[in-house]
Amino acid sequence: MPHDVITFGEAMIRLAPPHFQRLEQARSLDVEIGGAELNTAAGLARLGRSAAWVSRLPDNPLGKLVANRAREAGVSDEHVVYTDDSRCGLYFLEFGAAPRASGIVYDRRDSAAARVSPGVFDWPAIFRGARWFHVTGITAALSPGAADTVREALAAAHEAGLPTSIDLNYRSKLWSKEDAGRVMGDLLKYCRVLVASEGDADQLFGITGTDFADVARQFIDRFGVRAVVGVKRETPLVWRNRFGAVGYTEGRFVESPWYEVEIVDRLGAGDALASGLIHGLLDGDFEKGITYGAAMGALKHTIPGDIPWMTKEEIEAVLAGHGLRIRR
Amino acid sequence: MPHDVITFGEAMIRLAPPHFQRLEQARSLDVEIGGAELNTAAGLARLGRSAAWVSRLPDNPLGKLVANRAREAGVSDEHVVYTDDSRCGLYFLEFGAAPRASGIVYDRRDSAAARVSPGVFDWPAIFRGARWFHVTGITAALSPGAADTVREALAAAHEAGLPTSIDLNYRSKLWSKEDAGRVMGDLLKYCRVLVASEGDADQLFGITGTDFADVARQFIDRFGVRAVVGVKRETPLVWRNRFGAVGYTEGRFVESPWYEVEIVDRLGAGDALASGLIHGLLDGDFEKGITYGAAMGALKHTIPGDIPWMTKEEIEAVLAGHGLRIRR
Amino acid sequence: MPHDVITFGEAMIRLAPPHFQRLEQARSLDVEIGGAELNTAAGLARLGRSAAWVSRLPDNPLGKLVANRAREAGVSDEHVVYTDDSRCGLYFLEFGAAPRASGIVYDRRDSAAARVSPGVFDWPAIFRGARWFHVTGITAALSPGAADTVREALAAAHEAGLPTSIDLNYRSKLWSKEDAGRVMGDLLKYCRVLVASEGDADQLFGITGTDFADVARQFIDRFGVRAVVGVKRETPLVWRNRFGAVGYTEGRFVESPWYEVEIVDRLGAGDALASGLIHGLLDGDFEKGITYGAAMGALKHTIPGDIPWMTKEEIEAVLAGHGLRIRR
Amino acid sequence: MPHDVITFGEAMIRLAPPHFQRLEQARSLDVEIGGAELNTAAGLARLGRSAAWVSRLPDNPLGKLVANRAREAGVSDEHVVYTDDSRCGLYFLEFGAAPRASGIVYDRRDSAAARVSPGVFDWPAIFRGARWFHVTGITAALSPGAADTVREALAAAHEAGLPTSIDLNYRSKLWSKEDAGRVMGDLLKYCRVLVASEGDADQLFGITGTDFADVARQFIDRFGVRAVVGVKRETPLVWRNRFGAVGYTEGRFVESPWYEVEIVDRLGAGDALASGLIHGLLDGDFEKGITYGAAMGALKHTIPGDIPWMTKEEIEAVLAGHGLRIRR
Amino acid sequence: MPHDVITFGEAMIRLAPPHFQRLEQARSLDVEIGGAELNTAAGLARLGRSAAWVSRLPDNPLGKLVANRAREAGVSDEHVVYTDDSRCGLYFLEFGAAPRASGIVYDRRDSAAARVSPGVFDWPAIFRGARWFHVTGITAALSPGAADTVREALAAAHEAGLPTSIDLNYRSKLWSKEDAGRVMGDLLKYCRVLVASEGDADQLFGITGTDFADVARQFIDRFGVRAVVGVKRETPLVWRNRFGAVGYTEGRFVESPWYEVEIVDRLGAGDALASGLIHGLLDGDFEKGITYGAAMGALKHTIPGDIPWMTKEEIEAVLAGHGLRIRR
Amino acid sequence: MPHDVITFGEAMIRLAPPHFQRLEQARSLDVEIGGAELNTAAGLARLGRSAAWVSRLPDNPLGKLVANRAREAGVSDEHVVYTDDSRCGLYFLEFGAAPRASGIVYDRRDSAAARVSPGVFDWPAIFRGARWFHVTGITAALSPGAADTVREALAAAHEAGLPTSIDLNYRSKLWSKEDAGRVMGDLLKYCRVLVASEGDADQLFGITGTDFADVARQFIDRFGVRAVVGVKRETPLVWRNRFGAVGYTEGRFVESPWYEVEIVDRLGAGDALASGLIHGLLDGDFEKGITYGAAMGALKHTIPGDIPWMTKEEIEAVLAGHGLRIRR
Repeated sequence: MPHDVITFGEAMIRLAPPHFQRLEQARSLDVEIGGAELNTAAGLARLGRSAAWVSRLPDNPLGKLVANRAREAGVSDEHVVYTDDSRCGLYFLEFGAAPRASGIVYDRRDSAAARVSPGVFDWPAIFRGARWFHVTGITAALSPGAADTVREALAAAHEAGLPTSIDLNYRSKLWSKEDAGRVMGDLLKYCRVLVASEGDADQLFGITGTDFADVARQFIDRFGVRAVVGVKRETPLVWRNRFGAVGYTEGRFVESPWYEVEIVDRLGAGDALASGLIHGLLDGDFEKGITYGAAMGALKHTIPGDIPWMTKEEIEAVLAGHGLRIRR
Repeated sequence: MPHDVITFGEAMIRLAPPHFQRLEQARSLDVEIGGAELNTAAGLARLGRSAAWVSRLPDNPLGKLVANRAREAGVSDEHVVYTDDSRCGLYFLEFGAAPRASGIVYDRRDSAAARVSPGVFDWPAIFRGARWFHVTGITAALSPGAADTVREALAAAHEAGLPTSIDLNYRSKLWSKEDAGRVMGDLLKYCRVLVASEGDADQLFGITGTDFADVARQFIDRFGVRAVVGVKRETPLVWRNRFGAVGYTEGRFVESPWYEVEIVDRLGAGDALASGLIHGLLDGDFEKGITYGAAMGALKHTIPGDIPWMTKEEIEAVLAGHGLRIRR
Repeated sequence: MPHDVITFGEAMIRLAPPHFQRLEQARSLDVEIGGAELNTAAGLARLGRSAAWVSRLPDNPLGKLVANRAREAGVSDEHVVYTDDSRCGLYFLEFGAAPRASGIVYDRRDSAAARVSPGVFDWPAIFRGARWFHVTGITAALSPGAADTVREALAAAHEAGLPTSIDLNYRSKLWSKEDAGRVMGDLLKYCRVLVASEGDADQLFGITGTDFADVARQFIDRFGVRAVVGVKRETPLVWRNRFGAVGYTEGRFVESPWYEVEIVDRLGAGDALASGLIHGLLDGDFEKGITYGAAMGALKHTIPGDIPWMTKEEIEAVLAGHGLRIRR
Repeated sequence: MPHDVITFGEAMIRLAPPHFQRLEQARSLDVEIGGAELNTAAGLARLGRSAAWVSRLPDNPLGKLVANRAREAGVSDEHVVYTDDSRCGLYFLEFGAAPRASGIVYDRRDSAAARVSPGVFDWPAIFRGARWFHVTGITAALSPGAADTVREALAAAHEAGLPTSIDLNYRSKLWSKEDAGRVMGDLLKYCRVLVASEGDADQLFGITGTDFADVARQFIDRFGVRAVVGVKRETPLVWRNRFGAVGYTEGRFVESPWYEVEIVDRLGAGDALASGLIHGLLDGDFEKGITYGAAMGALKHTIPGDIPWMTKEEIEAVLAGHGLRIRR
Repeated sequence: MPHDVITFGEAMIRLAPPHFQRLEQARSLDVEIGGAELNTAAGLARLGRSAAWVSRLPDNPLGKLVANRAREAGVSDEHVVYTDDSRCGLYFLEFGAAPRASGIVYDRRDSAAARVSPGVFDWPAIFRGARWFHVTGITAALSPGAADTVREALAAAHEAGLPTSIDLNYRSKLWSKEDAGRVMGDLLKYCRVLVASEGDADQLFGITGTDFADVARQFIDRFGVRAVVGVKRETPLVWRNRFGAVGYTEGRFVESPWYEVEIVDRLGAGDALASGLIHGLLDGDFEKGITYGAAMGALKHTIPGDIPWMTKEEIEAVLAGHGLRIRR
Repeated sequence: MPHDVITFGEAMIRLAPPHFQRLEQARSLDVEIGGAELNTAAGLARLGRSAAWVSRLPDNPLGKLVANRAREAGVSDEHVVYTDDSRCGLYFLEFGAAPRASGIVYDRRDSAAARVSPGVFDWPAIFRGARWFHVTGITAALSPGAADTVREALAAAHEAGLPTSIDLNYRSKLWSKEDAGRVMGDLLKYCRVLVASEGDADQLFGITGTDFADVARQFIDRFGVRAVVGVKRETPLVWRNRFGAVGYTEGRFVESPWYEVEIVDRLGAGDALASGLIHGLLDGDFEKGITYGAAMGALKHTIPGDIPWMTKEEIEAVLAGHGLRIRR
């Protein structure tokens, strides 16, 4: 069955102590799953788009847990490949509070996804009937084999005439900015819509500008992408932020409202934004992409876990400016 | 044993996922009970007033759970009637966070309380020795039989010379504003003190005014109630509100201070306000009713569940303006 | 995408207090989903068979919760239909301990599944490419409309040449034995393989015999089914049982070993047995059906919830008589 | 409102680590309340008998917690007296498993109940309209003042013509066997029905016999009680026992069946037995007392906490020998 | 093995209902340990300083729980003395929310620590090789015997040439301000660095001043201490405060920045401040003491329990003004 | 400070879903720590022996969690070394029930302990003043570097005249029986007391015999160990076993009673046995070692987690044959 959107990347098991406990104190850990591209696929599924997530998982209960919960979130796991040779990526999350930021301990080395290599997936078959392909810089950062597989996928998408989006998502704990700049710069030639922060633009490509539009124009000029999208965020406290989306394409700068967010879970906001963005792009409507992306990113802050468990009605209530009173 | 106050209505089992989870994700649900009139009776019991709650429950463990916890909260269940013919009302609650409001899924149709009808309760016996009767528009909204039973109760209270209060509490998920306006308008002739919001006044009766006092005067003129009381609330965020009470009687407008509330549980604030109000009215002191009502309503936001588990000392600390430092 | 097996029935949200608490005492409820036909579909999915579950759910978070978790268990929900007109079936479960049996409070009246009626599902399309259809007497017991829809489905399966199995599963809380006997007797003409207990045989059809084979022969003679399968169980305690399967077809009586089971969750054992049975029948191997059915039924006792979350390896370890020592 | 039965004693907050954890490891403690006489009153309330529990509690949230939960269990707290001068009794419970017994750490010294003294309660008023008075040796063991208050209560009951039962319940952690023998021996003159184990009979009074009836006869001869009742128990494991009741009165030895019990919570079985016993005695039926007592004691093992949260239907199912299969 | 710092005082088991529940409602209690001097020792251990905590505990699982968790926090319990004659101090904590302050119910009377008396500890041996001794007014408040033991310890420290700090920490629930003033005034002659609030200065010693420095100068003049340190705090809400530290020594007033804190657990902030202070003082750097103390106190608000489970890196991130974005 | 016993090995974080859930279903995981040599050191600490555990941990919150809890259990971590180059070993545990065994998923590859190599520890300093050294085959199985480090440690112990014990503990998931036989055979020359099962004797060394004594004699003859100790166990069910210890030395066969165990947690029984064994051996009493070992092993089954949180009193109660009734 063809899917509207294909995404490719790792999903990890996330383990976080409840009730703001420190990891050192933990007697139990809450289990969620998360991975940028899976999160985005799930957001699209919540909007009624059919989405499949391509990945590689260990053939053990941990790998199956990830796939089970991907399906629970409405994402197809039919293109997930299992292996006996490696482990399931994990990350440990500790929630902070001002003046202490939240923290992450990654334990994802040698994961099944990191050990992927070209030839594992039959991309032409996977892309058959699809309408969009999305990947992030995190997948490329996992290992050289993973980066090569991203290139293989993007080339196959290009071959198939499939439009693509890439979220730079630079992770300094995974690779150096030099490596990231070199690899991602090479991949951008296959990218139609780029999601990038001004910070990443500077660190990876030395691109700085007077404002977001200026930075976007440089990406468009240098890499041939057609549009650039980013987050706007203010972080006065750990549990209260302001959030929105900005975008630039074809000479137009588009900006969502600012949303005041009471944060329940900070992870996955950018990935939810990508869901809304692709939702609009599938309709050929960049403005819709920015406004849905902003609303979905804002709403994601209110939902536990990395997956954007929201409804279309809730997104539309935010877009319509409905208030905060309980409905009854 | 006679009770100071009699209230009449449904109490439901409330099921809410913990830790801001979405209902769709829930693996466990926290169990509370709630019902506007039970909540108000419990608030009065916390103040040392003897209160009995009249209702109809299924004769199964769910019905008993409700009665057990009513007694735990200090409310007499001696006038509760059990039945085998129907179910226990339930509601499912999901906590939101800005920019997403909290949400409720009601599952209360065909509950034992909704299937009540005149003749079930011996109102003259129930009211013997009582000093006040309280009911809300929710009870009347449950079903035509329930509305008839409210009328029966109010008429019996009137017959017994018992003063009454009605909280309009319009619930759009239960009935239309037309039905609500017709039924409640008919019942208000038995009402001494009305609790109403300006919104409900407009929706149900088309009453609008320059301010709360203006609206109240119209209620007094049109329905013969002696006093009207309302909530004042600002909702900048889901978990931070400002709250207080206003009232009008005999030409006087009375207003509590604004209280800044850090919300633990938003439900039941209006019902707690009614407790404080009736507490003052039992002492013949309308101002006391407004100030106690406002303090109890504000405090209720800090207590999990619908029941106002506060102490008289805590209410008086709020009224005295004691600060927020821990006492030790 | 065609599925190996189609099942049809209701799935409910199951709410059970943790730690052997009584419902009356409950402060939280664990959430599982369960429904005989969904459970069987999930068991088949665990064996690598593609299975779709056909049902009707309310279009609210509770209905979605059920569908989410069906997908999590590997079952296709593509043929589930949503409605706004009714509620989600619930059941409340209390775990007992000797000398007290476990207990169930059903709250499933007027559920979306109970309000189903012929014409809702496009059975020919659903059955396209399928290899087996399974349903139980519980679906027929939900309402006359549901019984009619079961008949419609069975007739369509017959039309499509699809073999079928029916598990009698008489529930005295749902209908009288007279109604059950009449309706189920009528449906058995479409049934190839019947799952039935000797008790149900007697209560519904007045069929008694010297042993299981004798009862089975009467079913075969009277209703034209080709095989009859049943559970064997001893219940010395609530948390320790002995369990196995028996079957009769074409003159042969087949019996599994007895398994000593330490019970973690008593629900769904018969449905897991049906999974193993159909797994064998899909391979045209009745003995395999009995042995897999017995092992899966035994294993189900060790797994929380109604869904048989076991692996093929675990089933095979039971069949191979592997011991109880931890593997490391 | 007069109550059928009055009981008098301490109730403590019970704190136990979940999941078999050791107290030394505990990160959370489950909260129950328990006290022999409260437990017995609750058992009677479950049977539909009106019961009031007389005690003394601290006027703080811990004392109120105890009273709240007594009411939740259906017991009247109208005769509970509050004080500012002392604390709430606590006990810490650790669940064992063979070959390790469960253990208790008492922290009840200087509790509000232990500091009681004659004159605190208006016994003639409390006993007005009552039909039975029950107390245990634990209350007398709390302090000399408590022992004096038990004597005061028993004398007042005698004065009021109220029949009484005493459960010896010797606690070696509270007092010496010499003190217990002296004090309890003195109190037995007011006792109509004695609950005693053969072990306590020997330790406190040096009474030994060939069998329970022989011991009972000596109690009857020496102290003038009319009947003696005891537990029969086998303890092969911590979580599996055999349980029943024995009694002797007016030359007759009465014995219940043995019940095989899967233990959920070992505490309060004797107190539940006393509930069933008094239930029979209120009907003037000693055999009924023994059989109800045995069934209630057996059932109590299956219920978490000290309070016998069972139903009359469940007791009757045990008495009728219903099996252990789930009802559905 | 000699330790850098010795502290002396009681640690209690802290029992708090989860999720903002009221104690009256509690069905479980979270277990932490806390005691001002233990908290400070733990903070020093987190900084890499070797710290031993001197105390007296009951020889039962509760006492061992306290010692176990002290060791878990990196504090040496080698000088803890066990006794059979008394109990473990407890305190019950209820979290508030505006407009309701959090509350504490102490249950620490007759604890093993309160029953301490001179001669129990071999102070010269304990102090061998140590570099600092710290105690608070809470220890002196426990009982006259405890006050005498504090004096004994301070005199021994003086004898050994060990510098000392005292945190006044007046607790009105433990003793009168008159007693506190008399006893603490007498002890201050042994004190090098005093931690005191302006409120305590006034209540205990009648010392008031134009500002903190003025108050500090009076302490220096009157009692001969060399430095005075205090907290600065604003409490607009229960879960949002502003926090910092101030100090005065040798004519210099030193002040930390204000930190905006999102509070996870309000307890132990002052004790964490003392850790940072002593850390600086051990390096002979008063300014460092103030800045580390302020950062540690601020960070403590973000950590559940009384113990300052933070890392040196986190303290330094606060001092360096790192932001609140998650690191990944 | 010298320690009585030194042990060396890895400790992992153990993650297990609560309530018999499958890992695939898990929404939370309970956190324990475990490692054979740490468990044994903890058992010795519970008996009052000073014990230090030597290991290598990552310098992150997970590594610190392990060390924190080792100290909590009374074990010295002063010789633990931290590293930035590797991860913390993990294992995931799923509890079974008959007919399904419990299962373990190891995720310990490339752990800090596995990457150890000779030269990391200063064994002569660590062994100074010590009286016993204990290690298991698991440490040698971690990696060739770990095996070399075990050899280094054993040689240093030999040099220091320190008696040693080795528990073979063959783990087929870590290495082949050939590798294990070769490496362990080489190490046994340094071993005074061997703990081995008959199964491991056969698999690793091809040693079979008529009974345990026969096998032991062959070990003594072939490797020069002085004594051999083993477990005796029957496994009729997952949650009920029979357990005891056997030993052979200097021509004597010693055997403990069989203990009937109700299992709370199956892990760590052999390690607890080693604690009791070494406890006896430190007193030069082999029989005491066997009897304490058997009692501690039996008791360990009743305690959650891998660590033997038992008391000397409990061990002695088992040895004295005290019954299973609750003490009060």
